[in-house]
Amino acid sequence: MAPIFDFETVRLDEKKERLLILDQTRLPGKVCYISLKTQEQIIDAISTLKVRGAPAIGITAAFALYLGMKPFIGLSFEAFYKHFKEVSTPLAKSRPTAVNLFWAIDRIEQVILRNRKAAIVDILEAMRAEACRIKEEDKIMCRDIGIHGISLLKPGWGILTHCNAGHLAASWYGTALSPIYTGQEMGYHFRVFADETRPLLQGARLTAFELQYAGVDTTLICDNMASVVMGKGLVQAVLTGCDRVACNGDTANKIGTNTLAILAKHYGIPFYTCAPSSTIDASCKTGENIVIEERSPEEITEKWYRKRMAPENIKVFNPAFDITHHSLITAFITEKGIVYPPFDFTREENDKK
Amino acid sequence: MAPIFDFETVRLDEKKERLLILDQTRLPGKVCYISLKTQEQIIDAISTLKVRGAPAIGITAAFALYLGMKPFIGLSFEAFYKHFKEVSTPLAKSRPTAVNLFWAIDRIEQVILRNRKAAIVDILEAMRAEACRIKEEDKIMCRDIGIHGISLLKPGWGILTHCNAGHLAASWYGTALSPIYTGQEMGYHFRVFADETRPLLQGARLTAFELQYAGVDTTLICDNMASVVMGKGLVQAVLTGCDRVACNGDTANKIGTNTLAILAKHYGIPFYTCAPSSTIDASCKTGENIVIEERSPEEITEKWYRKRMAPENIKVFNPAFDITHHSLITAFITEKGIVYPPFDFTREENDKK
Repeated sequence: MAPIFDFETVRLDEKKERLLILDQTRLPGKVCYISLKTQEQIIDAISTLKVRGAPAIGITAAFALYLGMKPFIGLSFEAFYKHFKEVSTPLAKSRPTAVNLFWAIDRIEQVILRNRKAAIVDILEAMRAEACRIKEEDKIMCRDIGIHGISLLKPGWGILTHCNAGHLAASWYGTALSPIYTGQEMGYHFRVFADETRPLLQGARLTAFELQYAGVDTTLICDNMASVVMGKGLVQAVLTGCDRVACNGDTANKIGTNTLAILAKHYGIPFYTCAPSSTIDASCKTGENIVIEERSPEEITEKWYRKRMAPENIKVFNPAFDITHHSLITAFITEKGIVYPPFDFTREENDKK
Repeated sequence: MAPIFDFETVRLDEKKERLLILDQTRLPGKVCYISLKTQEQIIDAISTLKVRGAPAIGITAAFALYLGMKPFIGLSFEAFYKHFKEVSTPLAKSRPTAVNLFWAIDRIEQVILRNRKAAIVDILEAMRAEACRIKEEDKIMCRDIGIHGISLLKPGWGILTHCNAGHLAASWYGTALSPIYTGQEMGYHFRVFADETRPLLQGARLTAFELQYAGVDTTLICDNMASVVMGKGLVQAVLTGCDRVACNGDTANKIGTNTLAILAKHYGIPFYTCAPSSTIDASCKTGENIVIEERSPEEITEKWYRKRMAPENIKVFNPAFDITHHSLITAFITEKGIVYPPFDFTREENDKK
């Protein structure tokens, strides 16, 4: 069977020593790629959400480090490693919540340290190979989350999702949307409700776009309408992605996720978090340890609009993520299988190493 | 003490035989009045939300009937009443959910029927007087909801509100915002969180505007951020208005209200519905009998935006209201006092008559 998507979200163009990124700020109106060569360009693309989604950010960061270090081929190992730290530090600061960014940077750093006796040219080749491996593993992770996830779903179900945790946020079929696409291939005929996801509208712009592209029956709603579709019995499962999972199962994901989990509990609907192992952070005991990115007021008052939609000088609170308490999560769907409560991801993290 | 607001939302200009309405679709950028003379103009103003809010719609409808019937001064009673039915029927269809519209039309109709022996000129005068009485009663109702509501609140509290149930939706201090303005006069220093209220942004455009105008400490959030401010302990009470209350206490209000009630229950925060008696509908046994207005997809995909923010041809579900189950409501704040569960508004409605 042909894959549903004939385009990629992040791609290394080695000949031209650049990264090609599908500019997600232009969707759904325009499907266009931008070419990124410098660290500044890549950091800007991450922080302005031209590329977003925890797995895609990790892949982008890995390629960014390879491209960013290529000019330093003539250096000693010590100087090369010093430059690596200078290059990776601002990259790590481009988004504070998604752990994949730090995880990918760490994987590349470990490759450098493991190869410290090698020639710089070979270190660079090992970095390139590791970045490609991160991307390939991501594809397999996405596929396996789809395979495990579909075991929890039945044909004809209504599924609610939030933000975008699909092809555009990762590789292959994404995380939260992967069971949906897997079902699409199997003729499951899901009816999907996509929250628009204020303030940045990733649901309206990205999830609706890619589900429609894949031919999935999709209905767009405002975030505050999820309760109505749940109450009408139109939703049999909620599937979301995640940006970071603490050891106890507390999960950071796009603002609004936590509301859906509370609503799902109220209506007795299972709430599944689709989580690649790379989003598990063993250094976080609970959600209280996760830094929540606060973004600019203008995202709420002005962005997208023809004119400002709130009074001048009004105070605004704009957290980009929230924490879903582990008690609200029915199960995690990881690439390794389904994880039911009680959650303890300390060991899971150790398995990864 | 000077009243907080030095402008009115709906005003009859008798000399020029017109209704002056503060055009709420232009707020917060422009404060401007539009002049309405014909029934068509008034129906259009209601259905396009230039005037909105259950009490304000009732007042507008009452004045609309008076202005609409003035040209028929020369008719017999039978012909006059026949024309009244022709004028009131399309008006009643302009918004299906708020009961005040039907309630105000019914009050004017009862005045006509009670005065059937009188001269048409006197019937018209009685209609004008009844419309003015509806508006005056609304002011007193708003004031009394504020007075009763403040007894439930403490100085320094954080209060969350949704949509706009304030001065712009009614007279005086509105319904849900009336306890807040009453507290403002008393130096209570509330910290108010205003949900922006997608898709029509009544919270960002109207509530933020009038709270700021009144000098209330106000923070604008997206609807999907309410759970975060509740979870942080920043909210001690939720106050919302309502468009229709069934006998058992099930309540129709702006889409998103029901989510807030579920969240408030989850966090153990009291959820108060500010309800003038005019919103109680004795003909509705439960929320299941309330017709929910569905509005156009473009309100979600295009309205306000510089460009379309969702793919072409995507399905959209856009209910304008939802039903909050009576079990989620801590108490109703009416102009007559606080009503605690178990709710039975059959008698309340009978008291009105």
